[in-house]
Amino acid sequence: MGINQRQMSLGAFLFNYGHHYGAWRHPDSKVNGVIDLEFYKKSAQAAERGKFDMVFLADSSSVPSIQDAETNVSFIYPEALTVLGALTGLTERIGLAGTVSTTFNEPYNLARRFATLDHLSKGRAAWNVVTGTKETEARNFNADKLLEHSKRYERAREFLEVATGLWDSWEDEATVVDKQLPRFADTSRIHPINHQGSNFRVDGPLNIPRSPQGRPVIIEAGTSPDGQKLAAQTADVVFTATEDKEEAIRFYRQLKEQLPQYGRTPDQLKIMPGLLTFIGDTEEDAREKERAFNAFINPDAAVTYLSKLINVDLSGYPLDGPLPELPREGNTSRALMIMDMAKHTKMSIRDLGLHFSVARGHLTITGTAQQIADRIEDWFVSGACDGFNVMPPLLPDGLDEFVDKVVPLLQQRGLFRTEYTGHTLREHLGLTRPVSRFTAQPDSRTSF
Amino acid sequence: MGINQRQMSLGAFLFNYGHHYGAWRHPDSKVNGVIDLEFYKKSAQAAERGKFDMVFLADSSSVPSIQDAETNVSFIYPEALTVLGALTGLTERIGLAGTVSTTFNEPYNLARRFATLDHLSKGRAAWNVVTGTKETEARNFNADKLLEHSKRYERAREFLEVATGLWDSWEDEATVVDKQLPRFADTSRIHPINHQGSNFRVDGPLNIPRSPQGRPVIIEAGTSPDGQKLAAQTADVVFTATEDKEEAIRFYRQLKEQLPQYGRTPDQLKIMPGLLTFIGDTEEDAREKERAFNAFINPDAAVTYLSKLINVDLSGYPLDGPLPELPREGNTSRALMIMDMAKHTKMSIRDLGLHFSVARGHLTITGTAQQIADRIEDWFVSGACDGFNVMPPLLPDGLDEFVDKVVPLLQQRGLFRTEYTGHTLREHLGLTRPVSRFTAQPDSRTSF
Repeated sequence: MGINQRQMSLGAFLFNYGHHYGAWRHPDSKVNGVIDLEFYKKSAQAAERGKFDMVFLADSSSVPSIQDAETNVSFIYPEALTVLGALTGLTERIGLAGTVSTTFNEPYNLARRFATLDHLSKGRAAWNVVTGTKETEARNFNADKLLEHSKRYERAREFLEVATGLWDSWEDEATVVDKQLPRFADTSRIHPINHQGSNFRVDGPLNIPRSPQGRPVIIEAGTSPDGQKLAAQTADVVFTATEDKEEAIRFYRQLKEQLPQYGRTPDQLKIMPGLLTFIGDTEEDAREKERAFNAFINPDAAVTYLSKLINVDLSGYPLDGPLPELPREGNTSRALMIMDMAKHTKMSIRDLGLHFSVARGHLTITGTAQQIADRIEDWFVSGACDGFNVMPPLLPDGLDEFVDKVVPLLQQRGLFRTEYTGHTLREHLGLTRPVSRFTAQPDSRTSF
Repeated sequence: MGINQRQMSLGAFLFNYGHHYGAWRHPDSKVNGVIDLEFYKKSAQAAERGKFDMVFLADSSSVPSIQDAETNVSFIYPEALTVLGALTGLTERIGLAGTVSTTFNEPYNLARRFATLDHLSKGRAAWNVVTGTKETEARNFNADKLLEHSKRYERAREFLEVATGLWDSWEDEATVVDKQLPRFADTSRIHPINHQGSNFRVDGPLNIPRSPQGRPVIIEAGTSPDGQKLAAQTADVVFTATEDKEEAIRFYRQLKEQLPQYGRTPDQLKIMPGLLTFIGDTEEDAREKERAFNAFINPDAAVTYLSKLINVDLSGYPLDGPLPELPREGNTSRALMIMDMAKHTKMSIRDLGLHFSVARGHLTITGTAQQIADRIEDWFVSGACDGFNVMPPLLPDGLDEFVDKVVPLLQQRGLFRTEYTGHTLREHLGLTRPVSRFTAQPDSRTSF
């Protein structure tokens, strides 16, 4: 292996009890019905021991169905930034990535929260930008229904413009801190942003000095055409969900090809699909583990979950029949992908339900650590991705298992770091630190 | 001292570098122009060593004047809940109280954030409810100007109704967690709130099980008539600012007398004024310390600060002249208090500026630890307060000094705990844990 070999990035996607839909029922899960700091601490420290680039938290703001809470815990989300705040003092090097919606928040608040997280963690903050997908979320935020897709993306784009403006509003050189003069700040380097757009009016500046990374790392999904365009322009990392390597390669090329039109180079955006693994000492052992997990899922609950993914109630259709023809217009990219897969594989509603309630459309590998490392290497060297967002079926145990068994193989092959070389998340990911727009172009106030 | 003697509560008010306006210039301040976790960790651990009930963080969302940043750091606020999140894993018993505005936030988001903080800290969260006071804040949130005072309080009242409803939406018994059945939750004990009011429409329920304290502790200022009424109905703790013991006694009686009309007893609300102390080995030593601090303040900057407190630009008036007659209508309670004091004491604009930029209207005691403990005891036993929110002029050092010198005297006199007896902040404060409205009155959905 060459010393300059391209290195992959790894994220650890933390989720209550684990990513398998039935994880809470597993004998090893510590489920107790409360949100427990110990769970996040153990998970994050395991990922940091494995030299992961970051831990990642999803988020959502509603209970889609009270009835489902009978057997399903996947709608429970502690607020992501509060959890990441707690991890700042319990970890030292690993990035801290959290999801917050642009549809249900205000940019001044969110820019302050992420700048604070970036300061407290000494440059490890990342924001996963989402626009919300559930009608039940809208109904917790003063609306009857969700803004339509294109309006949500318009708002997200403007939100990012305001947030990055606020992060830039203090130039790096603004804080002088001379006790004797006295001079705390060079006020010629603190700038109002005077934003007036169709969604927001924000004068600025932020009431916090520029944070260690300049701007927190921006993560997006980049799946829909609107999402891809926004990601090509504004994302540092794209998290995707795909099970098919050829499709992943096409997506990778397609997205990276869009970067130059925004003055960016292909290495300024990292693409990381989700990856669920069942690790065994032998392949059969791994399959047995997967079967044991799947036995915790009730097929009816799985179909209810599938119904939510495709935004259509499937309870009236026979479990062993095919997915019915459904309208594609206005549905999510995830739903369209599931419909295509159903048509292609001719899987029954029951099997689709089990399949998607386990991995939710993410790549699943069941096998030995060797087999998993081979597959990871193959995707990485084939140009299907820049790394993976690892989703252990059970947490925190599954993360320790991945760190102990799979990470050393990736390290031996020179694909993954054996020690952190940087201190900030941007350094882990090989991303440059953005210059404030006011330093770069003193007359410009609105460019990304 | 009797074993059943009434005990006081102590809060530690944390603020960048310390509460003295010139603290950042003090030779012992570790000012470096960034927001540093180490500062909050040291301060919170000092307060916990002193068995304080809670640490407290203020908040604000604008830079009122860029020019002032030249010598003034008091507008810099890391976002309070992100900081408190970081303290959950670095402290064990002390309460974590943070300020968030109801004017610039949505109740579903905020209820989730405080419920998460309460879970992660195992029942130590408190929310200081404010409505915003600055026009510059409004201009960071899509508005030309701040909502008028009564409308801000209407919104705050409705916000609290929604937030408490969401915290109640999972009854304590809702989480069953039986892996075998399987049954995670008793869904008959998870309730939508279906709130439709003039400011908010929120369906609920919250997507997080009920938190350890049931509801986080609610802190308010309760100074204006609107604020007092809301506090009597909804606050667990009231933080006040007054330098005059007789006025404090009047306020204490007046507020506590309003509780019964809301079905509450006087001990269900704790009143804690702010307290700034300069501690010396002798009285002269303490006075010398105070003088040394005050030498770090430029009188012009102090008057600029005073201008902001009273919402009137004083830069055109002679420094050594009296405060001019000013309109009282629509101004804050703090501003009215300053105007009254100016009239009463005939202090010059310069002296008022120095005085208020130091203590911002809070009680200031300069003396030996013994003298300070005497004064604290006098206010407490006179019925002027239930404890104090301690505001060290320099942080974190000033908190260690207060803990080492003043706290032991209060403990010796049986006025303050020598060890935590409870685990939650409600237990520290002697407050009962609220029963969910759905458990208490299964048919009610809207009462506080």
